[in-house]
Amino acid sequence: MHNIKIMKYIISVIMTFILSLSLLSQEAEKTVRSIFDEALTDRTAFSQLEYLCKNTKGRIPGSAAAAEAVEYTRQALIKVGADSVWLQKVSVPHWERGFEKCSIVSAKLGSEDLNITALGLSVGTAPEGIISKVIEVHDFEELKKIGRKNVEGKIVFFNRPADDKLINSFAGYAGAVNQRTQGASEASKYGAVAVIVRSATQALDNFPHTGVNSYEENVTKIPAVAVSTIGAEMLSQWLKSDSELTIHLISTCRNLPDIWSYNVIGEIRGTQKPNEYFSVGGHLDAWDIGEGAIDDGGGCIQAIEMIRIFKKLGIRPKRTVRAVMFMNEEMTGTGGRAYAEEAKRKGEIQYVALEADRGVMTPRGFSFDAEGERLQKLIALSSFFVPYNIRDFDKGGGGSDISPLKSLGTVLIGSVPEAQRYFYYHHSANDTFEQVNCREFQLGNAASASLIYLIDFFNL
Amino acid sequence: MHNIKIMKYIISVIMTFILSLSLLSQEAEKTVRSIFDEALTDRTAFSQLEYLCKNTKGRIPGSAAAAEAVEYTRQALIKVGADSVWLQKVSVPHWERGFEKCSIVSAKLGSEDLNITALGLSVGTAPEGIISKVIEVHDFEELKKIGRKNVEGKIVFFNRPADDKLINSFAGYAGAVNQRTQGASEASKYGAVAVIVRSATQALDNFPHTGVNSYEENVTKIPAVAVSTIGAEMLSQWLKSDSELTIHLISTCRNLPDIWSYNVIGEIRGTQKPNEYFSVGGHLDAWDIGEGAIDDGGGCIQAIEMIRIFKKLGIRPKRTVRAVMFMNEEMTGTGGRAYAEEAKRKGEIQYVALEADRGVMTPRGFSFDAEGERLQKLIALSSFFVPYNIRDFDKGGGGSDISPLKSLGTVLIGSVPEAQRYFYYHHSANDTFEQVNCREFQLGNAASASLIYLIDFFNL
Repeated sequence: MHNIKIMKYIISVIMTFILSLSLLSQEAEKTVRSIFDEALTDRTAFSQLEYLCKNTKGRIPGSAAAAEAVEYTRQALIKVGADSVWLQKVSVPHWERGFEKCSIVSAKLGSEDLNITALGLSVGTAPEGIISKVIEVHDFEELKKIGRKNVEGKIVFFNRPADDKLINSFAGYAGAVNQRTQGASEASKYGAVAVIVRSATQALDNFPHTGVNSYEENVTKIPAVAVSTIGAEMLSQWLKSDSELTIHLISTCRNLPDIWSYNVIGEIRGTQKPNEYFSVGGHLDAWDIGEGAIDDGGGCIQAIEMIRIFKKLGIRPKRTVRAVMFMNEEMTGTGGRAYAEEAKRKGEIQYVALEADRGVMTPRGFSFDAEGERLQKLIALSSFFVPYNIRDFDKGGGGSDISPLKSLGTVLIGSVPEAQRYFYYHHSANDTFEQVNCREFQLGNAASASLIYLIDFFNL
Repeated sequence: MHNIKIMKYIISVIMTFILSLSLLSQEAEKTVRSIFDEALTDRTAFSQLEYLCKNTKGRIPGSAAAAEAVEYTRQALIKVGADSVWLQKVSVPHWERGFEKCSIVSAKLGSEDLNITALGLSVGTAPEGIISKVIEVHDFEELKKIGRKNVEGKIVFFNRPADDKLINSFAGYAGAVNQRTQGASEASKYGAVAVIVRSATQALDNFPHTGVNSYEENVTKIPAVAVSTIGAEMLSQWLKSDSELTIHLISTCRNLPDIWSYNVIGEIRGTQKPNEYFSVGGHLDAWDIGEGAIDDGGGCIQAIEMIRIFKKLGIRPKRTVRAVMFMNEEMTGTGGRAYAEEAKRKGEIQYVALEADRGVMTPRGFSFDAEGERLQKLIALSSFFVPYNIRDFDKGGGGSDISPLKSLGTVLIGSVPEAQRYFYYHHSANDTFEQVNCREFQLGNAASASLIYLIDFFNL
């Protein structure tokens, strides 16, 4: 009899536990649905993105446009009802684009101008430019093999395309981008006077794509520009017919002393564990030749939208939830580092960080930089996203702005949207508001806000 | 000793079987990889789609542009090396768009023109048009409730939006589209003189979206036009301020006698079972106000590209593989029916049919209209698509052109691409070549060709 009582008690405890779990799950499912409903029927975020794109175009670190973007997003965070909003000081490079012109001159073929764009942090040419012969190479091995005798005094033209066979568009980009980031330094070692780099994109079009160029210490800094993929194909063809052709390259960009800018932060204070933080964001700076819609205005507004949705629906997270617009991701990453340093100094428990910096097309999932049981539990959250056809929950990277938090033990998460056309726009004049589809953007906003809500709700 | 011999023999048979399966799988994996490599590095299909969009714009059934599209795709099939190419006669409606103008005139608010487009197969107004008051309704229930006394002599304005909360964009469309297909007939029953229908799209913009309107028998045929979603919002606002406003509607479209057109068919003859057929296609007709890039030029070229890839790679299918450009999907579906009827008459074994008519963005999977073990085996093919991040293999519909084959016992398959923005373009002037991303299109082409290859290879 006694045993039966104990058995009944155990069963009732188990049943209560299962019921409460299932009730919790039902509550969570319902809240996720309400987050999607809100995101899909409100156009605040889409309008904010339009404003950011159209009124703060050119917001490279240290620019007046970047200062405007800081002020606009600060005000946007206040408007959506963040409990507190502030700016965090960040030292940033101050680089200015100049006049740009690139003309091919061939005795055999005539002359033609190429669409170019200076690479970020590149030194400039003199105002009258450089006139020089050109040598085409495809990687640093080939450069080494050709050697100083064939390179010295010339412009090196790096023309390795992104590999279209790589299914992941980021892999194609990664396989081509070292020409842009390190090409100038490598070519300089062999006496080159400048580099022209094929744009790192799967697109075949006339848009040159910029991006940062990092000089190694102790090399002579030489000017670096990107040429469109169609321009690169043309230059390569012309070189086959006339290897003696010259290029007249003018790019009067310049580097000025570092100046101060800001990360923009807004938060909802946690009700139970206010010293545990979710840091959700994107980077506010963007390359000056486009509007920075997909890279990464969308990621920034997504974080603001999370705050708006939580406030609108009355979701009161246990932990403090922050929207962070990081400054200077594109050049030297000082915004992300400054954020992590202050968190460490203040003893903040940085619980989870989520970065959206892979575009804002239809969300396909998230990548989790976590281990073991915690990773498994996070991946298991995918069941809540089945009704939204968001299926790809995998182990993977977070993002460059949040990566300095890793040393604090933070779980890093990256948004994974559909991205096959991402590099068609990335870092080019083609990265405009018009490329963003309202509905796709809203779905991504809902997905990110839901994920943060669920992690907090289930204490994962 | 004897038993051990038998055992050894059995084990060796099993091992050989497993090995051969695994060798078969390896061969299949390798071929799929080669299909993707070819599709991703060749721009023939993308150029063909550009030609079709830019040179056969306006290819509604019965039009001169449709005849040009028939001839262009016939030649394209010959060029890519189809073993035989022919045309199949199809009777089609002959409807001509006329002059279109829609002006709101309000004594209180002034006057304003709305962007409209006549619905396909709609009757026209007289050249001087209709001037009438307007009554706004949202569904047929409301129309019934309002009744003849409030509807008679007026223009009925159907203004039910697509439900943005529905995650599947096709579900949102399906929930709104009966206003377009049946609105004129329903309104006519209550004495309306014309209908203006809110475009069936999730977009909020100025593009009106056309599509077919079907009159019931025995109703008075009244003119039917679509208005853009922004136009619909505006008209609704104006009606709130001035319910007495009038609309002056002119749409001089007209219906002419049916004429002949063609399905375009090209095939690779099967090496082992030539009387078993794969029918792979899209529809060649497209609404005249756009270029028919996503609906459905892309689906047509995808089928031609399958033939090109098979020929280029030397893939020799056991069964006969056909590319079929169906005529007249958009109006009355006679192309699909004619194809199935001829197949039946000739005793063709229509093994599998695949239709691509949901756009040509990044492929996400396929939907299979099949049952039981065969369905399970087809879905299991998804394992071959894991490296390409194509994960969504589900039970579901094929497509309207291939649906008449169902009665022949054919397994029907639909391509399932990413489609959140599909209805932003669908049936509007915004359905242009520029909306198609080369890489996304190529991935879809590879996916379809691979699926057909695999089904044939494994005899599924």
